[in-house]
Amino acid sequence: MRTAVIVVDMLNPYDHEDADRLVDSVERVVEPTAGLIERASGDGAELIYVNDNYGDWNSSSEELAERALKGRRPDLVEPLLPPEGTDFVIKARHTIFYMTPLEYLLAQKEIGHVVLAGQVTEQCILYSALDAYVRHLDVTIPTDAVAHIHEELAEAALKMMERNMRAELVSSAECRLEA
Amino acid sequence: MRTAVIVVDMLNPYDHEDADRLVDSVERVVEPTAGLIERASGDGAELIYVNDNYGDWNSSSEELAERALKGRRPDLVEPLLPPEGTDFVIKARHTIFYMTPLEYLLAQKEIGHVVLAGQVTEQCILYSALDAYVRHLDVTIPTDAVAHIHEELAEAALKMMERNMRAELVSSAECRLEA
Amino acid sequence: MRTAVIVVDMLNPYDHEDADRLVDSVERVVEPTAGLIERASGDGAELIYVNDNYGDWNSSSEELAERALKGRRPDLVEPLLPPEGTDFVIKARHTIFYMTPLEYLLAQKEIGHVVLAGQVTEQCILYSALDAYVRHLDVTIPTDAVAHIHEELAEAALKMMERNMRAELVSSAECRLEA
Amino acid sequence: MRTAVIVVDMLNPYDHEDADRLVDSVERVVEPTAGLIERASGDGAELIYVNDNYGDWNSSSEELAERALKGRRPDLVEPLLPPEGTDFVIKARHTIFYMTPLEYLLAQKEIGHVVLAGQVTEQCILYSALDAYVRHLDVTIPTDAVAHIHEELAEAALKMMERNMRAELVSSAECRLEA
Repeated sequence: MRTAVIVVDMLNPYDHEDADRLVDSVERVVEPTAGLIERASGDGAELIYVNDNYGDWNSSSEELAERALKGRRPDLVEPLLPPEGTDFVIKARHTIFYMTPLEYLLAQKEIGHVVLAGQVTEQCILYSALDAYVRHLDVTIPTDAVAHIHEELAEAALKMMERNMRAELVSSAECRLEA
Repeated sequence: MRTAVIVVDMLNPYDHEDADRLVDSVERVVEPTAGLIERASGDGAELIYVNDNYGDWNSSSEELAERALKGRRPDLVEPLLPPEGTDFVIKARHTIFYMTPLEYLLAQKEIGHVVLAGQVTEQCILYSALDAYVRHLDVTIPTDAVAHIHEELAEAALKMMERNMRAELVSSAECRLEA
Repeated sequence: MRTAVIVVDMLNPYDHEDADRLVDSVERVVEPTAGLIERASGDGAELIYVNDNYGDWNSSSEELAERALKGRRPDLVEPLLPPEGTDFVIKARHTIFYMTPLEYLLAQKEIGHVVLAGQVTEQCILYSALDAYVRHLDVTIPTDAVAHIHEELAEAALKMMERNMRAELVSSAECRLEA
Repeated sequence: MRTAVIVVDMLNPYDHEDADRLVDSVERVVEPTAGLIERASGDGAELIYVNDNYGDWNSSSEELAERALKGRRPDLVEPLLPPEGTDFVIKARHTIFYMTPLEYLLAQKEIGHVVLAGQVTEQCILYSALDAYVRHLDVTIPTDAVAHIHEELAEAALKMMERNMRAELVSSAECRLEA
């Protein structure tokens, strides 16, 4: 059973409502997330980016990266740009599985374990963990590599993932990535 | 835009893990839920039951009801038995939408607003509210007609539904059911 | 990789438009289909019925069987009634996969090969073969156990399944059912 | 109810098996398809491209166009390049709906009628017409703007779409595109 590190919604111009509260948390997750991304290839895990298209149905990964770099916090985007050739899935709604080819991509690559990094802990990360669990995928949450808007809800979300979706909560340094 | 009252997983034999913690909460929701079920037809709302099949792929609504009545707490089941001819959707996993015909049924009946009653607040109700929101359905949670296992997580789940899924939280008596 | 024999839409009251053309063909497939159903258990294959609910969202397998037996051709229904306890999936639209739990059920039972028997060759059988192929399932069509309305289109459908969905076309007696 | 003209798989390098048989047919559909594309904006229809990613999960519309232009028949690609800013959906399997956001995109734009142009008549066009019909979308097939590999199967596919999926078969010049 192989592992995929999935980086969720980190190509963000940070100009939306709630962005101020979010960036405080993102500042702390950039470095651990960059570490996970670097380890992913070395340890034989797949690396997959999933990002919202923000309603633009003509966007590519390059355009989403460019737009995020022109946003309010390029310093939070630049260290997490996808390495060239990285698999990239565009989503339109809140979970990485809803009306995307992600489930198919994971099956093609024989991935049974997903490590969910990125934002927002109590929203897209929680929902994606649920959708992964429903599909009988193992889920790991690197707690220092997921960013929240609302701290109390994020803590509850992590408990829900652990109790009800059998997710493993670990530091990014401790994530199992090997096959 | 029409409304459907959806009764989730109330045909339960209460013999699973965590059932003890759950029944304390269910005891309090039976009466308000029975009230909602009665109002549903009078006010022109649709009434739909969705229930887990507990892994039995040959079960009908009658069999699920019978099994629940033979379980540990028939007193919590009997007042909530589906009125004859009620639409019934069987599910196998945690949300009422995953691999069920519910989305199709709602579209056929031109339903744009769902009232989610039943169990478990911080599990199937939360997940179903999310799946409804992702599908652009309006969601109402009658807070006295949803039962939980873990009180603190249930409270966080209600906040998540209100903040992040635009759900309306009201008492069952105040639920809008009319077309 | 295990095999499932899937019996599609054979609980039919035969009172719909086109039923007259269909029954001519059904008369010839009843016996081979009954043979497949009998062999399924003996050879270690799963047997699964999938049937349309004809718009009645409160129907069980027993009710669908009863209604079909009260229809115009009970002689075509009676020999193909599901053995007690058979897995039963209710569908609302034209393919056995659309908004049904079939994909989940097949994965749970580790089934990688489906034998599609029943009706209508150039409609539900064709569409279901496609949906199975898209999901990377192997498909076998027992050509003497599928019934058509329109002979010429049925022949084209069989060619499409063979050429474009890699389906194996064999007689029901030759179907591989063993694990 | 609005209309979308959907251009399917026309960014093709034509280097796959069966490409020789396909290009004979594509040569005849390029001009009518270009006409439809031009009319789409003028008549208030949406224009959407859906194209296979040929297994490359890092491809954008620009890269798929570039690769097709470097293929064996750039003359069949160049006249059908998507106008700048055109909505673009990438697919991995045989129908334009399977594990893509197309259904969501159509609902967002309130589209109830799809005109399916492109390739291959007896494969992706047939399957996509089915998936559209199952979702209660109206379907029009411009018969001079769909290309086939196997003429006899393509003719049967068109009959199936007309008889069993209520598709309207017309020339591209006669397609209704207005709202």
